[in-house]
Amino acid sequence: MKLIFDKSNLTKAVNIVLKAVPSKTTMSILECILIDATTNVIKFTSNDMELGIETTVQGDIIEKGKVSIEAKLFADIVRKLPDNKITIETDENYTSKITCEKSKFNIAGRSGDDFSYLPTIVKDKSITISQFMLKEIINQTIFSISPNDNNKMMTGELLEFKEGKLKLVGLDGHRIAIRNVALEGEFDDVKVVVPGKTLSEISKILTADAESMVHIYFTNNHILFEFDDTIIVSRLIDGEYFRINQMLSNDYETKITINKKEFIDSIDRANLLISESDKRPIIINIIDNSLEVKVNSVNGSLNEDIDIEKEGKDIMIGFNPKFLMDALKVIDDEMVDIYLVNPKAPCFIRDKNTNYIYLILPVNFTA
Amino acid sequence: MKLIFDKSNLTKAVNIVLKAVPSKTTMSILECILIDATTNVIKFTSNDMELGIETTVQGDIIEKGKVSIEAKLFADIVRKLPDNKITIETDENYTSKITCEKSKFNIAGRSGDDFSYLPTIVKDKSITISQFMLKEIINQTIFSISPNDNNKMMTGELLEFKEGKLKLVGLDGHRIAIRNVALEGEFDDVKVVVPGKTLSEISKILTADAESMVHIYFTNNHILFEFDDTIIVSRLIDGEYFRINQMLSNDYETKITINKKEFIDSIDRANLLISESDKRPIIINIIDNSLEVKVNSVNGSLNEDIDIEKEGKDIMIGFNPKFLMDALKVIDDEMVDIYLVNPKAPCFIRDKNTNYIYLILPVNFTA
Repeated sequence: MKLIFDKSNLTKAVNIVLKAVPSKTTMSILECILIDATTNVIKFTSNDMELGIETTVQGDIIEKGKVSIEAKLFADIVRKLPDNKITIETDENYTSKITCEKSKFNIAGRSGDDFSYLPTIVKDKSITISQFMLKEIINQTIFSISPNDNNKMMTGELLEFKEGKLKLVGLDGHRIAIRNVALEGEFDDVKVVVPGKTLSEISKILTADAESMVHIYFTNNHILFEFDDTIIVSRLIDGEYFRINQMLSNDYETKITINKKEFIDSIDRANLLISESDKRPIIINIIDNSLEVKVNSVNGSLNEDIDIEKEGKDIMIGFNPKFLMDALKVIDDEMVDIYLVNPKAPCFIRDKNTNYIYLILPVNFTA
Repeated sequence: MKLIFDKSNLTKAVNIVLKAVPSKTTMSILECILIDATTNVIKFTSNDMELGIETTVQGDIIEKGKVSIEAKLFADIVRKLPDNKITIETDENYTSKITCEKSKFNIAGRSGDDFSYLPTIVKDKSITISQFMLKEIINQTIFSISPNDNNKMMTGELLEFKEGKLKLVGLDGHRIAIRNVALEGEFDDVKVVVPGKTLSEISKILTADAESMVHIYFTNNHILFEFDDTIIVSRLIDGEYFRINQMLSNDYETKITINKKEFIDSIDRANLLISESDKRPIIINIIDNSLEVKVNSVNGSLNEDIDIEKEGKDIMIGFNPKFLMDALKVIDDEMVDIYLVNPKAPCFIRDKNTNYIYLILPVNFTA
């Protein structure tokens, strides 16, 4: 095999496929990427057995062939080479010579046949969404999932398409994040649970381009994302997702409208007094048109007032500051509406059209 | 005590004194800074018993007094407060109220009398150098010292003034870094060993201002740096420094002139194949007007050629790539001269006027 690339094309492709290379594994072949130039196009593939990525790379095929090559070392070499033509050439032992200007690397390779190919997906049901929007809704919900939970379902996100709307939901037992977005076009109904890792890796590869589209295909066990020159295939999480509609409510006793930045800055300061170990809540005390942020810890105390608009009753309620922060940080609006019932009931941060809904459970506090 | 500051002045002063606050200590008072407003100026002091920093802060004294306050928490609070007037007020129990706009922090303080004041230095012998130059020569030598050595002398740098020249020297048993700089003005001869930690913290506080001067004062046990509104006092390392003149030589068998950036890039790539554990050298093979960088490891091999100017014999010699890199990275020149004798003898990277000299011991290699 002998291939010639521009460094920029090679860098871009390698960085995409690296996202599905596991950092720790007992199967050394998974640490490789497959370079496949057996046809008239060059494809790079990585596969950690849950998530697989295949991307087509611009380059000249001087001699056809394929090879598996250690992903991290290969990526490091490509990154450090001069910005010029890079040639990759393998011999019969899969030793790969990587040359650029006066640099000549020789690294071990393995047979391309050792590599686990991606599963074949029948492109049946599908939806289409812009790269920008998909990236946004992932980033606006993914923080709410549980990264390593005994409950596998909490490590994924519900992706549901129904009545022209795509819904993405993450939850971890203390909070729920929901994003709804209307899609243009006619698609079949879909309801699947996608692993969180898949979504977070995809969001890193997606550009913020609102014009460029992602086509998403579904089977019973797999989801496939297709955009630019890249295909990403992931297993789905098997089973029934939580019945979130039961947990949502439009009733409230108190509704406030608050400046998001002022609230974030205030919580940020309150956080200074809370050590990781002591998990002390911050107390939100709403009186008339003022929201007081309070915290009392071994390190000291903080009180601040923020002007708000209020409908309904006064209330004092405690929260894990991280949960408030995570939600507020991903909201684009300058002013946010927060709905409260009582100090034991969840609060809701949501906009009028329920494009986003963040449910957060309160915590007990001693005033 | 009641003081009012602009946030910017407070931030600057706190960041300066933080440099002498130890991250780990069994003496909790060392984690504090002293805020002293008993006179007509406000001074912040920190002291880890080796290194002490005192800086004068612009601010209004409403009520005189002093307090010791936990440095890290105080710095974090100041950083997160709005960009406005910040008031610090203490009561008779040293509880400190920090207010800014609608934020009110209360944190515990301690009596200012608990604090260890800086030693008094008789300002006798002194030299003067620009902030820019002092910062430069520290950064260009400090990497060569041994951070944690049984040999205490290797953890410091020799600072010597003689015949109008300031010399700064660091060494660790494998290499030596020397910077010489001519100073304007008449000063007494000086020869002291300054702790590396002192120098590295000072270099972080110094600005890159070539017009602003640092006055350095010496006693038998201490060194004092005075610049802007800040005084830094440090213990000296006691004892006789190494006789480095015996290790230096102007003889050579091979002299090469090489493009610094090309050499750095090449070593950087060679490094990719060297794992931390295996400590393999890179091999430099000089033949005619070409320098070949070679490395051979379990991960693969690399060969590159760089065009050079050469005087004298061909030579093949092995080096720890880190030592070459550390020196090359701090040299400002585009082209550097390297002097070699044989594969067992140290190499010298130095300029014609010996403003800098980097001695590096070679390592054995199997070709």
